[in-house]
Amino acid sequence: MTSKPNDSVRPIKWKDNSLCLMDQRLLPETNTFLKLNTAAETADAIKDMVVRGAPAIGITAAYGVVLAARARYADNASTWKQAIEDDLTLLADARPTAVNLVWAIKHMRECIMTIEGDPEQPLLEEARRIHEQDIEANYRMGELAASLIDQHSNVLTHCNAGSLATGGYGTALGAVRSACAQNKIDHVYADETRPWLQGARLTAWELLQDGIDVTLITEGAAASLMHQDKVQWVIVGSDRIAANGDVANKIGTYSLAVNARYHGVKLMVVAPTSTVDMNCPSGDLIPIESRSTDELMSVDGHRIAAHGANAWNPVFDVTPAALVDAIVTEKGIVLGPTVQKMADMMKSALSA
Amino acid sequence: MTSKPNDSVRPIKWKDNSLCLMDQRLLPETNTFLKLNTAAETADAIKDMVVRGAPAIGITAAYGVVLAARARYADNASTWKQAIEDDLTLLADARPTAVNLVWAIKHMRECIMTIEGDPEQPLLEEARRIHEQDIEANYRMGELAASLIDQHSNVLTHCNAGSLATGGYGTALGAVRSACAQNKIDHVYADETRPWLQGARLTAWELLQDGIDVTLITEGAAASLMHQDKVQWVIVGSDRIAANGDVANKIGTYSLAVNARYHGVKLMVVAPTSTVDMNCPSGDLIPIESRSTDELMSVDGHRIAAHGANAWNPVFDVTPAALVDAIVTEKGIVLGPTVQKMADMMKSALSA
Repeated sequence: MTSKPNDSVRPIKWKDNSLCLMDQRLLPETNTFLKLNTAAETADAIKDMVVRGAPAIGITAAYGVVLAARARYADNASTWKQAIEDDLTLLADARPTAVNLVWAIKHMRECIMTIEGDPEQPLLEEARRIHEQDIEANYRMGELAASLIDQHSNVLTHCNAGSLATGGYGTALGAVRSACAQNKIDHVYADETRPWLQGARLTAWELLQDGIDVTLITEGAAASLMHQDKVQWVIVGSDRIAANGDVANKIGTYSLAVNARYHGVKLMVVAPTSTVDMNCPSGDLIPIESRSTDELMSVDGHRIAAHGANAWNPVFDVTPAALVDAIVTEKGIVLGPTVQKMADMMKSALSA
Repeated sequence: MTSKPNDSVRPIKWKDNSLCLMDQRLLPETNTFLKLNTAAETADAIKDMVVRGAPAIGITAAYGVVLAARARYADNASTWKQAIEDDLTLLADARPTAVNLVWAIKHMRECIMTIEGDPEQPLLEEARRIHEQDIEANYRMGELAASLIDQHSNVLTHCNAGSLATGGYGTALGAVRSACAQNKIDHVYADETRPWLQGARLTAWELLQDGIDVTLITEGAAASLMHQDKVQWVIVGSDRIAANGDVANKIGTYSLAVNARYHGVKLMVVAPTSTVDMNCPSGDLIPIESRSTDELMSVDGHRIAAHGANAWNPVFDVTPAALVDAIVTEKGIVLGPTVQKMADMMKSALSA
């Protein structure tokens, strides 16, 4: 008997003709929405991590295109399609690693091509469709992912690949929600995930909203957890999956993957096909964003590191396909990903 | 041509008949010494991490025995040797993993047995001897460790195994100091080391005091660093080495060790023989301290984690000898540690 998973968090809303984003920089202490009315504000919100998570920033950018079109069309109804290209570039360049951003802009541009007259409503419909399809994909992936998980499993997740990182329900945390609803999971562990602490701040918060207990660990403790046989699956999201199944995800994922393989723990990557970049043949070609070293020097403005120290702060890494046991998209499960298996999955219809 | 390594930090001092400890909880922002006058204050300082690092807490406990003896002898000159046993237990139990604490108490107890009359001066001499021998051991280990390091190497260290963790000069950071003085090291990377941030707070600070540049990374970034061939040696200290060469050290060391082996990076453990517990046959018998989950919930009183989350906070882990390329003590270098090699090293005279 499967109960319906709890699923209460929605970080992105369109309300009163504005884009409203839950300000994830302030969680878990404060839960407020920022109201955005321009493409530039939207790009800044993505850059500054008001919203983060590959599918969520794709959806956000889609709504940002609606805001851009409204302004460009009001400015000049005959040249807005040329003028909006600057906005599309601004939004697409807001962050480099998540391919969902590029994917969403591409879809919105295709929609722009077909529009005659005022673009706001048709583009809003397209953005809403992208948003709703993302949530639908997450539900489907949750079911598929849960089918891989045995009863009485413990899982470890990294960063936040939940409702907050998507349109809703989540990718890795969607898998957790679905498997929990099937009573398959005894315990959820979450890496706190330095430097931005997405695990401690966001994953713990959103799982607790839905009544799922979670135990935080430092990333350094994951290997001990595995050694003590306390985890059967590492489940993560992704920011870009290359055509060969290499997976870019939050820094630290690769270390977990190496440790998982060493300890015989399985690694599952849950991500919609909008995260799969078939134009990128392998992971070493995925652009890896480096962010400010301030993220290591201070926590919320409170200095932690010695003055004068340097830092290296790549915020994503690449896990080779050979270390990935399963990639789950809304189109199906790819066990032991290869170029051929990924291509077959991408070509297939939606799974039943 | 070898220049003399810079070596300016001394965290433990005996001054004005008191034990003075650099308060490491306040570094790097504030550098102040706490003055301690009783064994209870000393045990609390060890528990509360005013001082930390296996050799440093051993030395601190030795001075704590001086303070205990002064009070017990003043209280009753004929029964102090019985009465002080409570203090020795209190000090020995202050933290469970570092065997140096037990080792230092054992040495001080042996000294107590031989004393007639006022114990303060002879015990102070013994504590000072332990302190000075620790620094001497670190110099020797630094030279031995540097002999293993090739020119133009980059090293990664974890936690703080430096002057601040010892009587002075450091174990892992002593190796770094010696190798830097021989111009063998191009770059030093330091894990920030959650949850207590010893790397960011302490290692960066003490290396910068001595003019050694350091680049901080999150623990999650270490695997990427190795994958990019940016590190040749991982160099760490230890809190207890079992008779078979298994190594207990700061949580996260084991994850680094697994990643180092996967990437063909070498792992060196630098620790004095006072850290080797020949009564402990293997690492799975080493007691692993768990500390308050507050260490994951807040940074310096600033809340970071969602309210209601649990945490698991073991602060040490065990790296099996099979993943250790070299153990360096003041008695010599053990490559590929085994029970027999460890026993031979412990029985040997000091290396020349």
